[in-house]
Amino acid sequence: MDSKQFKEAAFSSIEEIVKYYDNIEDRPVLSTVEPGYLRKLLPADAPEEGESWADIQKDIEDKIMPGITHWQSPNFLAWFPSSSSFPAMLGEMYSAAFTGAAFNWVCSPAVTELETIVLDWLARGLGLPPCFHSTGPTGGGGVIHGTASEAVATVVVAARDKYLREATAHLGLEGEELEDAIAERRGRLVALAGASAHTATKKAAQIAGVRFRSVPAGPGDGHRLTAAALRDAVATLRARGLEPFYLTATFGTTDTCAVDDMAGIGGVLADDAAAHGREVWVHVDAAYAGAALLCPEHRALMSAAALARFHSFNTNLHKWLLVNFDCSGVWVRDRTLLTRALSVAPLAILANAHTDSGLVTDYRDWQIPFGRRFRSLKVWFVLRSYGLAGLRAHVRRHVALAEGFADRLRGRADLFEIVTGPRFALTVFRVRGKGEEGEGEEQEVRNARTKRVYDEVVEGGKMFLSSTVVGGVFAIRHNPATPMVQEHHVQKHFEVLVEAAEKVLAAEGA
Amino acid sequence: MDSKQFKEAAFSSIEEIVKYYDNIEDRPVLSTVEPGYLRKLLPADAPEEGESWADIQKDIEDKIMPGITHWQSPNFLAWFPSSSSFPAMLGEMYSAAFTGAAFNWVCSPAVTELETIVLDWLARGLGLPPCFHSTGPTGGGGVIHGTASEAVATVVVAARDKYLREATAHLGLEGEELEDAIAERRGRLVALAGASAHTATKKAAQIAGVRFRSVPAGPGDGHRLTAAALRDAVATLRARGLEPFYLTATFGTTDTCAVDDMAGIGGVLADDAAAHGREVWVHVDAAYAGAALLCPEHRALMSAAALARFHSFNTNLHKWLLVNFDCSGVWVRDRTLLTRALSVAPLAILANAHTDSGLVTDYRDWQIPFGRRFRSLKVWFVLRSYGLAGLRAHVRRHVALAEGFADRLRGRADLFEIVTGPRFALTVFRVRGKGEEGEGEEQEVRNARTKRVYDEVVEGGKMFLSSTVVGGVFAIRHNPATPMVQEHHVQKHFEVLVEAAEKVLAAEGA
Repeated sequence: MDSKQFKEAAFSSIEEIVKYYDNIEDRPVLSTVEPGYLRKLLPADAPEEGESWADIQKDIEDKIMPGITHWQSPNFLAWFPSSSSFPAMLGEMYSAAFTGAAFNWVCSPAVTELETIVLDWLARGLGLPPCFHSTGPTGGGGVIHGTASEAVATVVVAARDKYLREATAHLGLEGEELEDAIAERRGRLVALAGASAHTATKKAAQIAGVRFRSVPAGPGDGHRLTAAALRDAVATLRARGLEPFYLTATFGTTDTCAVDDMAGIGGVLADDAAAHGREVWVHVDAAYAGAALLCPEHRALMSAAALARFHSFNTNLHKWLLVNFDCSGVWVRDRTLLTRALSVAPLAILANAHTDSGLVTDYRDWQIPFGRRFRSLKVWFVLRSYGLAGLRAHVRRHVALAEGFADRLRGRADLFEIVTGPRFALTVFRVRGKGEEGEGEEQEVRNARTKRVYDEVVEGGKMFLSSTVVGGVFAIRHNPATPMVQEHHVQKHFEVLVEAAEKVLAAEGA
Repeated sequence: MDSKQFKEAAFSSIEEIVKYYDNIEDRPVLSTVEPGYLRKLLPADAPEEGESWADIQKDIEDKIMPGITHWQSPNFLAWFPSSSSFPAMLGEMYSAAFTGAAFNWVCSPAVTELETIVLDWLARGLGLPPCFHSTGPTGGGGVIHGTASEAVATVVVAARDKYLREATAHLGLEGEELEDAIAERRGRLVALAGASAHTATKKAAQIAGVRFRSVPAGPGDGHRLTAAALRDAVATLRARGLEPFYLTATFGTTDTCAVDDMAGIGGVLADDAAAHGREVWVHVDAAYAGAALLCPEHRALMSAAALARFHSFNTNLHKWLLVNFDCSGVWVRDRTLLTRALSVAPLAILANAHTDSGLVTDYRDWQIPFGRRFRSLKVWFVLRSYGLAGLRAHVRRHVALAEGFADRLRGRADLFEIVTGPRFALTVFRVRGKGEEGEGEEQEVRNARTKRVYDEVVEGGKMFLSSTVVGGVFAIRHNPATPMVQEHHVQKHFEVLVEAAEKVLAAEGA
């Protein structure tokens, strides 16, 4: 494909993509193919000779599209959104054009420098305390990782190494003796997260080779990690001779968008550090809800002062902030805590005066992978195209849509009961039953009913939501934070739910 | 930006990108900006109100381009290539359009299924033994990671957990007792790699919390890891009570494209497993040179039979195989070794009948991150656009260009001496001096002379190469495996080198 053919192919692809977005609502939101569908459609081997773009492009609609779940459809309300915007798509185009491995500054200085700048822009926009800015007092700064789980794995490794370095410094050992001492101590370390936190922390502990404990956070606490529960967990571990070194605090849990007690957590861990002489690293996982921090009215649950006591923070710009997947912004209070854990003596072929000068950032030492894409470009395009005001309006529009949805549920209290929310545009609800006014019904019966309604809706194909189980309650999650969702879509979602609930209840009565 | 505005912006961006590729040769290949250049050009804060695409696009040429090192320039000969192709760029466009987090099969079945299929296509194209095919006898298969370092980190974690699971199985423990036993044993584990291997293994060991040892591989062994060196290293560790559990064997080392003694390594580790009852996981890192396996004439250094004794293999399709960064193909002989180490009990909101059925692949359990992009699309487009014959021709063309370059060096044996190669299109050479025919010159003097020539060339801005130090020899690396390099470029590279060498030698004589 020469550049002339590429231009034609690219124009044709853009036309197809525009059509796809213009008509996305007409497609069934959830793919209904059976496992193994694609192998039946494709040859067993790669072609020996090249094929024309026209032949390839045709297969996108015929063979790929049936296996696509349309995350940008206004009827996609599942999990959390993975938002798309046209400016971000342009960013991906230029990023692919400038492709390179970009493992150090000299690989393409713009890749590194734009990343530092847009993450500073965001840090200020989100109201993060100055310690998280690259220009801040503690040598902090931001980096783009792929996903929140990559961010959590990375900071668990950094936290583990910080702890072990500090815990063995007084021994005055080096070489294999130091290695032995670290290995012995490493075996006692425990990473913590609230029971409502994402499984990313458990996986990160598996990756880093440390123990993991989940701290209870149930319905009585609003599904949030409380100071009391954390204090108990830490005391239990210490009594066993184990050493908590890391905690994920969640701003917007996966199931219900609960926010852990940030001020309380900071207090408990300050007491613990004073008593034991060694601090626990706190990472705030705000993968989805972090976007809401653009709006001052959402900052009450985590003040800048509370956050400034913690070590790292991440929010996925690809969730609610219109930057196409993947793009997780990660900020640390002290960047040397990442680079000390993740840098290795560089290869001879990487030698360059800029790295030696210490004046530049080599982001490979802030992450697990070696090379990196030019992801800041799409962030820059989005921030400039929307402006901070536009992004705040984007978040507030979704929050208002969710309020409207919750009002509709409340208006049919005969059918629905809100379990949590609306919070950060997420409403978690269940279906009521005719006979349960007196609370005489078993939870199992209620759960089965809500599950029937959920299945009815998803199998109907008009919308795609997630279900969950929180505190023993089977519930449906409605999150309209996908860019294209409008008021009339939410009304339609509600109508589909009412219809399904009435059908299930009628069948029960029959 | 609505879809009509996007279409205009995208067409205009495509025009710019085509112009960029058509004229890339005219740009200075290496960016010469000073550290901090971009902060001076951009505002301190994100704009409050949105800006027009025209204003944003203008800044790409004015502000970003000066900070870009042009990896696709035919004068980019540094490190290894990070190749670009127009079909892969179309793949990125569609991938961005279908954006989603794709952490399990139902997120978009096509994302998972196309990945499995194209990696099977490649496994067959590369001549990998059937155990690495998803349809093979041992339940293997492929997955796309971002980079080779991510692949290595992932398999080190999987290898560590396999070893610990097997080493503690006979104890009959569970719960905290099992955890204690694993923690104790984990402290003895050692990951290994040859001294010429990429630093990714050392970093992976840091991430996984295990020890690391580099096994000597010097000029006397052709910079490759030999059976004898490995046997010695393993014996030394065992004598200390440490337990080697993992080895990276390299097919094409970073400095010189050396290939470790694959058959010999397999033999040593088979003996070791027989003696100690526990096998060492071998991962083959073929990050760059793996592409050459498409051509049967490059398979002699690693037979399928030798590879079949090992556990995992990766090659970066973004290096030599025309798939834009990032895209590392990773194959394992037994996929349960990844999923057992990397899966965690899924969140309630991920529950779906397909995952429960066990019939589908949830690739999140084959990798560190949770979500994933639709990267198989660009692989599919490249494989179909070029065909296997086209890709083989692509590799052979570069190998021939390097042979021609080496012939030119040999034709000026008064100026240049080849240190290693050409091998997989990489030639490593140094500058001769007038007075050294009798080997009377110190290495330091020779090294300084080659460094002067290297600096002269790179500062001249006409081409960008890497230098390295191998076995104490400072040498220049020439790797013309970037797609646009043609015969006349290689001739020009040679002329620039001759001119610089003659200038430096003349200055010495003056």
